[in-house]
Amino acid sequence: MCIHGNLMKEPKGCQPRDRQMCGRSFSLWTTFPRSLCSHHAPRKVTRANGARRAMAAAVTAAWAQRLAGVRGLLLDVSGVLYDGGDGGGTPIPGSIEAVARIKQSGLKLRFCTNESQKSRDKFVGLLRRLGFDISVNEITSPAPAARQILKERGLRPYLLVHDDVRSEFEGMDTSDPNCVVIGDAGDGFSYQSMNEAFRVLINLENPVLLSLGKGRYYKETDGLMLDVGPYMRALEYACDIHAEVVGKPAPEFFRAALKEMGTEAHETLMIGDDIVGDVGGARCCGMRALQVRTGKFRPSDEHHPEVQADGYVNNLAEAVDLVLQFADK
Amino acid sequence: MCIHGNLMKEPKGCQPRDRQMCGRSFSLWTTFPRSLCSHHAPRKVTRANGARRAMAAAVTAAWAQRLAGVRGLLLDVSGVLYDGGDGGGTPIPGSIEAVARIKQSGLKLRFCTNESQKSRDKFVGLLRRLGFDISVNEITSPAPAARQILKERGLRPYLLVHDDVRSEFEGMDTSDPNCVVIGDAGDGFSYQSMNEAFRVLINLENPVLLSLGKGRYYKETDGLMLDVGPYMRALEYACDIHAEVVGKPAPEFFRAALKEMGTEAHETLMIGDDIVGDVGGARCCGMRALQVRTGKFRPSDEHHPEVQADGYVNNLAEAVDLVLQFADK
Repeated sequence: MCIHGNLMKEPKGCQPRDRQMCGRSFSLWTTFPRSLCSHHAPRKVTRANGARRAMAAAVTAAWAQRLAGVRGLLLDVSGVLYDGGDGGGTPIPGSIEAVARIKQSGLKLRFCTNESQKSRDKFVGLLRRLGFDISVNEITSPAPAARQILKERGLRPYLLVHDDVRSEFEGMDTSDPNCVVIGDAGDGFSYQSMNEAFRVLINLENPVLLSLGKGRYYKETDGLMLDVGPYMRALEYACDIHAEVVGKPAPEFFRAALKEMGTEAHETLMIGDDIVGDVGGARCCGMRALQVRTGKFRPSDEHHPEVQADGYVNNLAEAVDLVLQFADK
Repeated sequence: MCIHGNLMKEPKGCQPRDRQMCGRSFSLWTTFPRSLCSHHAPRKVTRANGARRAMAAAVTAAWAQRLAGVRGLLLDVSGVLYDGGDGGGTPIPGSIEAVARIKQSGLKLRFCTNESQKSRDKFVGLLRRLGFDISVNEITSPAPAARQILKERGLRPYLLVHDDVRSEFEGMDTSDPNCVVIGDAGDGFSYQSMNEAFRVLINLENPVLLSLGKGRYYKETDGLMLDVGPYMRALEYACDIHAEVVGKPAPEFFRAALKEMGTEAHETLMIGDDIVGDVGGARCCGMRALQVRTGKFRPSDEHHPEVQADGYVNNLAEAVDLVLQFADK
């Protein structure tokens, strides 16, 4: 077993990338001296069976401790299950089977996404076409939560959102808007649409900006793409206001997902590719959280100045291997 | 003479707008009791000739003190000289004559603008068509300053700027960019162009973002328009970086304008419509600054939590009346 959580195979020797990963992950395993690390220690020591067995046992114990009592999983979707892109995107290898294994295990499962380019119906349709066994009522996403807020507060939104998510707001009064809802509008983020949203806000005595998430970027098959967060910041700066974030990492959003799943925070594990939105948000709510090294993951995330995950794994399949091995069923 | 600087005529009676303006400006004139204010005090008191004369004399003395020793004027352009818009825009009433009067007075004069939608040539062409007596060598603007920085540091820019300002960067190497220059690109701020700039920055080990100003918005004849600042903030957030601002309110930019004009900060008065970019920036450099109530001015500017002008005037014409009355010639 590799110290940085790669259960599939242990690297032979100490390749540059392995050394680098090992260095990154080592802070999570401070009980292990570097001399016990199979990637860092002198070869004649690391090859000693005794030391390797001791390390493997210690790593096992650490994972067992970290995952003890987990009864439910919250999974981010984009970058964890699949990478978006032309034609809908591509499943991340092993993730279709990983979802199926969780469902078979008896663990509770819910998908917690900031997806705001598609309605839940369209989003689930895409995921099902990619091969995932997912239904609409398993998904917590920000647009329905925003709709509820608008209704409760009698707000009439200017919708700066993707055309494919407008159906989530169907039937709402959007005349003479007294707030702005901003989502991941993609190509809909034209200068004209941003300026219209700005003019709505700047003319309100008490401007309200609801943002469907605040992600910086996400990954599609052809590269990183700007998410809603930068555009939210643009309007915040232009109008000297603070947006209300509906979606991860807002605590209310995570709590809604927990309520819908029926688990307590301390018995729930979040798995995501966003160190701030997924990992930071979940941990702030008392959950545990793993970051996958897929999607928008960047090596610098493992040195994030403010957020540290309970563990870093190469992908969802590895996370599920660990969970099924160590969590309570 | 009105206490809030309206030298043209004194309002008859105390209209709601006059009362409001008077309340805003009063903090600048704390030596005057409210009972002496012709807009606040009971009518029978304000109409007493003695009190009015005392107030007028005190206001005159205050302006004389504030403008003493001024030898040079730095004028913002958009929102002070003209409001942009279809067909090039419209001069603000009295501003063409105000510029001519400054030139005739013997005071030094320079135009200090964050204009980044047009090259200096095109900008001056527009202003001359509107009736202003202005030449290219009287203008300090951010694009030439940015070009100089790029040259000094050997940077190859990705240019996220308006097509009309590209000529300022003519001949520069823009292949394999190692920085981004962002200006007021207007309709050029598409999702695609923003994403391209983002990808350049996120892939650099030491990302450099030069921003031609950081204004929140400006005014055109049909309403307020988003400026470069919000888009700068968007890229800053997306890449977790800080932009280097080339333009107001950067101190280096003001100092360059002073050097070009040939006056010291303490003998220079900035006149602008932007409480932060014009007034705050100039005062940080040791200049005095007036805010005009034209262009992007909003009543809340007079209560800005961090920046206070040396005075607020209704427009450039009023500012020039005061300057020519009280500044050293």
